[in-house]
Amino acid sequence: MSRPGRVAVLGAGSWGTAFAAVMGSSTSPEGRRADRIVLWSRRREIADAITLGYRNPEYLPDIDLPENISAVTDIHQAVTDAAVVVVAVPAQHVRETLTTVKDSIAEDAIVVSLVKGLERGTGERPSQVCASALGVPPERFAVVSGPNLALEIARGEPTATVVASESAETAEAIAAMTAGRTFRPYTNTDVVGVEIGGIVKNVIALAVGICDGQGLGDNSKASVITRGLAETTRLAIAVGGRPETMAGLAGLGDLVATCASPLSRNRSAGRLIGTGMGVDEAVASMKQTAEGIKSVSAVVDLARRHDVEMPISEAINAVVSGRLEVATLADLLLSRNLKSEGHRA
Amino acid sequence: MSRPGRVAVLGAGSWGTAFAAVMGSSTSPEGRRADRIVLWSRRREIADAITLGYRNPEYLPDIDLPENISAVTDIHQAVTDAAVVVVAVPAQHVRETLTTVKDSIAEDAIVVSLVKGLERGTGERPSQVCASALGVPPERFAVVSGPNLALEIARGEPTATVVASESAETAEAIAAMTAGRTFRPYTNTDVVGVEIGGIVKNVIALAVGICDGQGLGDNSKASVITRGLAETTRLAIAVGGRPETMAGLAGLGDLVATCASPLSRNRSAGRLIGTGMGVDEAVASMKQTAEGIKSVSAVVDLARRHDVEMPISEAINAVVSGRLEVATLADLLLSRNLKSEGHRA
Repeated sequence: MSRPGRVAVLGAGSWGTAFAAVMGSSTSPEGRRADRIVLWSRRREIADAITLGYRNPEYLPDIDLPENISAVTDIHQAVTDAAVVVVAVPAQHVRETLTTVKDSIAEDAIVVSLVKGLERGTGERPSQVCASALGVPPERFAVVSGPNLALEIARGEPTATVVASESAETAEAIAAMTAGRTFRPYTNTDVVGVEIGGIVKNVIALAVGICDGQGLGDNSKASVITRGLAETTRLAIAVGGRPETMAGLAGLGDLVATCASPLSRNRSAGRLIGTGMGVDEAVASMKQTAEGIKSVSAVVDLARRHDVEMPISEAINAVVSGRLEVATLADLLLSRNLKSEGHRA
Repeated sequence: MSRPGRVAVLGAGSWGTAFAAVMGSSTSPEGRRADRIVLWSRRREIADAITLGYRNPEYLPDIDLPENISAVTDIHQAVTDAAVVVVAVPAQHVRETLTTVKDSIAEDAIVVSLVKGLERGTGERPSQVCASALGVPPERFAVVSGPNLALEIARGEPTATVVASESAETAEAIAAMTAGRTFRPYTNTDVVGVEIGGIVKNVIALAVGICDGQGLGDNSKASVITRGLAETTRLAIAVGGRPETMAGLAGLGDLVATCASPLSRNRSAGRLIGTGMGVDEAVASMKQTAEGIKSVSAVVDLARRHDVEMPISEAINAVVSGRLEVATLADLLLSRNLKSEGHRA
């Protein structure tokens, strides 16, 4: 049995740390908010800095964390007794991480995914990976996604998000644990749509970043964003998501924030690639994972399996796998080969 | 009878001038493109500079215009014999301008609107104003709108747009006249949706600009854009537009480009207001009309008449009319009072 109010956050990157801070400063009534949050970091120096100094020097250096947060390097210790286990590791590490820790997680724990990538090989969404690695039933699973640049959240800038679970009660419980003065969660039950929005936006942000790196203007980038949301929506519907989710905060909202912000890792990685840097070099230069680069092949595979046309994702996949020159990409992204609305003169 | 290939553009602001340049450099086959474009400017020095030096020193100072463009100050002279009359004056001047020149326009001319505002008093869209001022039938009317920052277009940056007419043939004829190496028109028949997208985006851009001026981040601005498109779509549907238009280049695309770009007049005006400048002062500081400020009261009136909730437009109207402090607006825009998807915890 878990202890109410006890939360584990697996992964002390910028989003895991910011989300822990959100939970630690929730203004919900006692009993609905967390009273103790334990972050898990692989790295001793980060865990110590959080526990002793309430700072994450690597990923959120200038942010003071709430005092109900501590961090450990032993993942079993982190999850023991936790009523809520938040998964905030890169998408390709979710299965391995959860398999390791499965037996230490309480049977009644709620699992919350912050993960925004598709697993390569299986093509599974984070909810599917969590279900198969942990055996957690849908009513004890939730996903959080939206226009949520971690640094802005950590700075206390007003932010809305979506908490989705097949169980409205679970979504509301997690929403209550995060609601605060500046963090505003909305709930829905479209786990699939919310996950697809968060995953594909990283691929579209790469495309927008590449356009940026190639010196294209806002007219072009807005067209790529528009077509990018259209292909994201087609995929979401094909795998069971709802179109209205894609028009909301976890679809359009997240895409627009990511593509607008210099804080976005995927847009930044795209920008480097657009200026001529090799993909491997761009990846190596990033402090944290650019999920779009890791997931794009799985996104394209999933789309093909469902007969969904995703020309932007196909083009980015070709660039990432070295089959398409980046100089050709920009033309392709804006060419008539990309179907758009109505008829092209 | 008009002379084929002869085009008049009424209004030599940045968008009218850039659109004339687009037509002047179309790569469509002879017979489908314009051979002579006459711009009308009220101001002698602008008309002379265009005709003699192929430059618009006031609104596009660094752009060389094609040599098939000239400009006049006599509006009758501009439209005489024109097969296509392009309307590029501020929304509140369309009726007066067209009424003056009605008798000089050829009976078979196609009228193209670049106008992105709603007429105050009547609440009419530009297509309605053109129809009532000129008696032009729907099959000889088209509207052009999309992610179309004029300066980027004039610089030859890749740009997609939408040409809408109730007559697919008319839309295609105008699309052919504009299609070029970097300008890519798509056609549809949803005049209402395309117009509403272009009109309301100026109001939402004011809101985003105000957020910017108040120091809010990309998470907040993305939420305002998301909710802004939702209220735009509700209005479009209520007055006969199609939801897919709003998800396309003339809805989402135009909104995103306008809200992203420092070149946007409405976003810039909003930014000034957001930093504490009075509305009148902000308007006075702009070289050209910020249509959102002029139209917002008519947008709100139209929404109320159709029982459509437009909380962002209502809030901007209250700011513009001096009934709401700008400092209160940012909170309001992100508050639970603005309905969003699903349930707010």
